[in-house]
Amino acid sequence: MAKEKIIGMTVKKSENFPDWYTEVIQKAELADYAAIAGCIVFRPYSYEIWEYVQDYINKDIKKRGHKNAYFPLFIPESFFKKESDHVEGFAPEVAWIEQKEGDSERYALRPTSEAIIMDSYSKWVKSHRDLPILLNQWCNIVRWETKVTKPFLRTREFLWQEGHTAHKNKKEAEEEVKVSLEMYRHLIEEEMAIPVLSGKKSEAEKFAGADYTSCLEAMMPDGKALQMCTSHYLGQGFAKAFDIKFLDENEKHEYVHTTSWGLTTRTIGAIIMVHGDDKGLVMPPRMAPIQAVIVPILFDKTKKDVLKKAEEIKEKLSDKIRIHLDDRDNYNPGWKYNQWELKGVPIRIEIGPKDIEKKQVVLVRRDNGEKTFVKISELEKQLPILLDTIQKSLLSKARKFLKASIHEAKTFNEFTKILEKDRGFIKVGWCGERVCEEQIKDKTTATVRVLDGKAKPTGKCVHCGKKATSVAYFAKSY
Amino acid sequence: MAKEKIIGMTVKKSENFPDWYTEVIQKAELADYAAIAGCIVFRPYSYEIWEYVQDYINKDIKKRGHKNAYFPLFIPESFFKKESDHVEGFAPEVAWIEQKEGDSERYALRPTSEAIIMDSYSKWVKSHRDLPILLNQWCNIVRWETKVTKPFLRTREFLWQEGHTAHKNKKEAEEEVKVSLEMYRHLIEEEMAIPVLSGKKSEAEKFAGADYTSCLEAMMPDGKALQMCTSHYLGQGFAKAFDIKFLDENEKHEYVHTTSWGLTTRTIGAIIMVHGDDKGLVMPPRMAPIQAVIVPILFDKTKKDVLKKAEEIKEKLSDKIRIHLDDRDNYNPGWKYNQWELKGVPIRIEIGPKDIEKKQVVLVRRDNGEKTFVKISELEKQLPILLDTIQKSLLSKARKFLKASIHEAKTFNEFTKILEKDRGFIKVGWCGERVCEEQIKDKTTATVRVLDGKAKPTGKCVHCGKKATSVAYFAKSY
Repeated sequence: MAKEKIIGMTVKKSENFPDWYTEVIQKAELADYAAIAGCIVFRPYSYEIWEYVQDYINKDIKKRGHKNAYFPLFIPESFFKKESDHVEGFAPEVAWIEQKEGDSERYALRPTSEAIIMDSYSKWVKSHRDLPILLNQWCNIVRWETKVTKPFLRTREFLWQEGHTAHKNKKEAEEEVKVSLEMYRHLIEEEMAIPVLSGKKSEAEKFAGADYTSCLEAMMPDGKALQMCTSHYLGQGFAKAFDIKFLDENEKHEYVHTTSWGLTTRTIGAIIMVHGDDKGLVMPPRMAPIQAVIVPILFDKTKKDVLKKAEEIKEKLSDKIRIHLDDRDNYNPGWKYNQWELKGVPIRIEIGPKDIEKKQVVLVRRDNGEKTFVKISELEKQLPILLDTIQKSLLSKARKFLKASIHEAKTFNEFTKILEKDRGFIKVGWCGERVCEEQIKDKTTATVRVLDGKAKPTGKCVHCGKKATSVAYFAKSY
Repeated sequence: MAKEKIIGMTVKKSENFPDWYTEVIQKAELADYAAIAGCIVFRPYSYEIWEYVQDYINKDIKKRGHKNAYFPLFIPESFFKKESDHVEGFAPEVAWIEQKEGDSERYALRPTSEAIIMDSYSKWVKSHRDLPILLNQWCNIVRWETKVTKPFLRTREFLWQEGHTAHKNKKEAEEEVKVSLEMYRHLIEEEMAIPVLSGKKSEAEKFAGADYTSCLEAMMPDGKALQMCTSHYLGQGFAKAFDIKFLDENEKHEYVHTTSWGLTTRTIGAIIMVHGDDKGLVMPPRMAPIQAVIVPILFDKTKKDVLKKAEEIKEKLSDKIRIHLDDRDNYNPGWKYNQWELKGVPIRIEIGPKDIEKKQVVLVRRDNGEKTFVKISELEKQLPILLDTIQKSLLSKARKFLKASIHEAKTFNEFTKILEKDRGFIKVGWCGERVCEEQIKDKTTATVRVLDGKAKPTGKCVHCGKKATSVAYFAKSY
């Protein structure tokens, strides 16, 4: 038996949330700090979560007729400048490559790919029969952050998918924006078990170059909001800047309407923060790389029989769930329990010689520690049910938290008090004016996270007292 | 009906191979030149081929216990310099990012990731129980080529996978090198239908930093060789440079043995060159994004019935093969035939009103134009067989070409004559000395593509007349 110390979490989630977060990431072997400031190494355990996201999104978009493609990492400076809002929004974070002999201009590393993709679309689109163009790409993105970086949430390089579509009219483009956002909502709520608020961004917070940005926002345990994804209606702005015109059915030249939508590896950070606890990561079962781990209790005399039974159980279940048998010789069960708890595996299956006599195993839920004895013959039926129960329980807990995190404020005094005390989302009537939003941000650091498109505003703006034109959710954010 | 011109190939493969190649790429919509010199856009049709490669390799390596991970795009200059052969080999092609305020040193864009990955391994490896480490990453690679670039074959950014493993001893590492190369051979010969020569590289041609490099080399129709992939035994060189040590079973500190192996998007270029013909691309059926395309022959009166039958056939077969129904209204059958031939779809299924009466369809093979009439009821059985026949036929044709491309030379006079006349591989006895290889390269531009590990050399070196120590295949190459 190894002399390894049982090294679990040392920081409590409720006591020091930022330190807890970085400790989980390292101890669950999700990521490592890289030698380059602000960059991380995605270790296999977090990359497997990302592969799940890739599969999920690929299936959805391919069914909708989209295809994957790949555009260059490099964006010529001149392209970047074609859409003026766009360049202004991204300029401070852009990394450039050193010019080499023969290069005609400076090249940026893509902070987003509208500019380079629109250049291609201008070549590909001639007639209405070339539309819609429905493309997506999976790639790395570089934004040379000047703010403090944080693994998954804010790094100088991250991974994402970016959908880019071109349509013959506004209606079709807006439908694409809506359907893509709905795809994300399914993924985030049903797979990641993270409930979200959905709506449009304010003018100040929208994507640089968009007509409007719709988004999903989640609430983190420290009362700060996290933007989970965005889906932009870009109108004809990029089409005009890059001259993407088509001959319509009436032989008239028209500019296309474009959209873009993306979801990044920061969602992995959200999973960690929302579900994790003092023992480490808690993976929602649907997304867990390992859904159940078998830990055999081994004594010299009965070792062979127990291992054989454990192997049998694994074989029998591996078609139904993602199951792993931890048959390592040189770690004791306690050490193993600890490690798999750190990694947030939803169910632990303990099996020892006494269990075999009784033809049973012990199931331990990661989310609440509940133990149950289950007949081995019942496992095939019971495990999927239990995984589903855990999934629902995590979502329901997160929903309660989200609900409790939404506060209403009628006055700016109430607004600032909530921010000081509880944080969370502050639901207010708001005038919708940029200058008012900036003033609120200067005073409190809170911004409009999302506008409620359904609620009808009444009364006055919580800050400036003008007529409220929308219901807004303000919050501090990552 | 549209007034579109039928725009097929205008250049013949046998007459102007380089122009033919670039014409196929653009007309089959595989790739487009990007606005950045030396970069291309991977359009959906080539990216789908790459997705097939990804699936294939992922399945193989995951079965072997490997996992995917993701390391930063950026490599600090100091890391890069740790392995002296490595930095020397890559330095001329490295692109750097402009230093920003606060950056402690210059960062390169990865031309390969050994340096950044080994830094992580040095942190992760402590004990023999941490070994082996079996990781792979899918990513973009930047090499700022100074030579003439060519789509897929030589571009400043390309896509690849790079496997990086660390082992406790040489035997295990060398086994990994071998098994990975064998995986590539299967993929290239059996899926891409491209036969290869297998063996080690010479000292001059091996990977910068490797103990040795094994590789697979294919012959292109213009008599130039193409390196399809490499698998390197890196020995303990990187382990020593990056201090990757472990405590072995006897409590002794040892350096790990590392390997790396990669396959890039240039293999797509090989598929185009090897199988394509004067009508465009010819996709090997196993890898074809569309394996069969149904083109209905539509007349006003019978249109509805024909489309209904075509749809039925598609539905029935779509579980078995990747089938597409081209039901576009505004293109005539001739135009469609042409387009799908350009795109190299292995089988065209023609169905018109007369065929429906006879309960049959016409199958047309893309590779040899052969037409057969097949009963609709037989399609489910016949199509997979025909696809298999085409796959085998392409491989067999390519094998014959490879065999015919191998010439033996006893003297340097014969050597140069073959290079002038036939090109191809020149099989020779060779001294194995670096200076001799350099002289041959200076005189002929041919290099050692691969050393035959099995053949026993006899006689003298074809160039310098010293004792031959190996049997080498020389060729001009991409």
